[in-house]
Amino acid sequence: MQRIKNWACFGGQQQVWKHSSSTLGCSMEVAVYLPPQASETAKLPVLYYLSGLTCTWENMVSKAGAQRYAAEHGLILVSPDTSPRGVNLAGEDESYDFGSGAGFYIDATERPWAKHYRMYSYVTEELPALLAEHFPGADTARSGIFGHSMGGHGALVCAFRNPQRYKSVSAFAPIVAPSQVPWGEKAFSGYLGADRNSWAAWDATALASGTGWRKPVLIDQGMADEFLEKQLKPQLLANAAAAAGIPLTLRLQAGYDHSYYFIASFIGEHIAHHAQQLRR
Amino acid sequence: MQRIKNWACFGGQQQVWKHSSSTLGCSMEVAVYLPPQASETAKLPVLYYLSGLTCTWENMVSKAGAQRYAAEHGLILVSPDTSPRGVNLAGEDESYDFGSGAGFYIDATERPWAKHYRMYSYVTEELPALLAEHFPGADTARSGIFGHSMGGHGALVCAFRNPQRYKSVSAFAPIVAPSQVPWGEKAFSGYLGADRNSWAAWDATALASGTGWRKPVLIDQGMADEFLEKQLKPQLLANAAAAAGIPLTLRLQAGYDHSYYFIASFIGEHIAHHAQQLRR
Repeated sequence: MQRIKNWACFGGQQQVWKHSSSTLGCSMEVAVYLPPQASETAKLPVLYYLSGLTCTWENMVSKAGAQRYAAEHGLILVSPDTSPRGVNLAGEDESYDFGSGAGFYIDATERPWAKHYRMYSYVTEELPALLAEHFPGADTARSGIFGHSMGGHGALVCAFRNPQRYKSVSAFAPIVAPSQVPWGEKAFSGYLGADRNSWAAWDATALASGTGWRKPVLIDQGMADEFLEKQLKPQLLANAAAAAGIPLTLRLQAGYDHSYYFIASFIGEHIAHHAQQLRR
Repeated sequence: MQRIKNWACFGGQQQVWKHSSSTLGCSMEVAVYLPPQASETAKLPVLYYLSGLTCTWENMVSKAGAQRYAAEHGLILVSPDTSPRGVNLAGEDESYDFGSGAGFYIDATERPWAKHYRMYSYVTEELPALLAEHFPGADTARSGIFGHSMGGHGALVCAFRNPQRYKSVSAFAPIVAPSQVPWGEKAFSGYLGADRNSWAAWDATALASGTGWRKPVLIDQGMADEFLEKQLKPQLLANAAAAAGIPLTLRLQAGYDHSYYFIASFIGEHIAHHAQQLRR
């Protein structure tokens, strides 16, 4: 791993690293915020943030104001990119909601995507191993995960599929049922193929009934979000979670849209939610 | 004034307005954050933020995290642009440190700039009048001003020239003595002409000895700021302020650079500084 950026921020360091990903078969950038408490021996919890369509690590790092709260609670914040980059697949850059910038945090099975589009394994396996190796102060056994929109869904799927690996989860305006909305149908058709039976393993609402996840789930959703009705539909997950016995809090926030002004307004409460779970 | 953006943010509203400026002779955009306390009768103090070279209202609004603190303290935040826009003067867009994006918050006297480049009068006269007219809850008699780099200097000059109009001032990594550094020499030569005697009225360090300003001045300066040695030189103002009896606190922050990660880290303390002065 090679450090390519390093800004002093809220008493800690906002860094960006570049590394060759064996999972994705390309070079990737990942942002890591080390709070002031960080040291080689501090053993701080790790909180992953997964961004939405079209984003890189930079949107959250520059616009969410998360570093203040990570510094307050002593958490390491890790913000990966949203897809493999520069792998030169035909059609990769043709639309904002498929291909580059739109990896959906799943492992693709369809050609040509299956070779590179493996963001799930990258986030849940390769990144934790890299952090453990290069950041001795990162206690990767205490990890939480959250995200926005496509990344909110990614966080829910990572947590529901790995209730032992993650101790906390939350989401801002997540896609919750990709099998039932246009963004998800397009992405899953491309990455996973036409057989919808294969989609359930990557759909948070479908996963809810079978997961062992029983820790609190916090979701904030803006009521003025332009994608709420057609793409997000958080009630679908709230219903599935209630049926499955998962303690999910869905907060509908009047007036808020899908932007980082929404995320910034509530990210302090999300990080406090994670800090509380990660202290246990 | 026409509202062109409106985001819910920390319980208030981050707005952007477009208006025709009689002072500048062009159409301008200005961002206004109304905290949750805002109402037609609330009479909240107004805090102006002046951005640095190449910026618009957007840098501060999207990256500084200021809205949280404005909401806490009940302040209206006003972020104008950094120069007239679209006035089509020859040479206006040729460099990042002169012309568009680089108005320096002075009133130019040289042709062709004098007709449009009057950001000082825009900030100190036209904007307060517009706010008083369109935001009945804005108590423009209680106003503070701060800024970054070129805008930090603009804030100091506005305050020092108008100790009655502004009740508080602070700056992040400001230019403090434009007559003595390359950025200032280039800008003042162009806007004010070759006679350096005319520059003193727009130079914070030169103004210090004659101003009636006696309220606390807060300046934060990153020690890893790439512009510190050549363009900023805050000690020049610290010395002049000490000689003049102005209570100036210059905080040298180890490790911080010139970026918004630096500003975000300390803007909470700056807004608290203003809130304290504006309550008096």
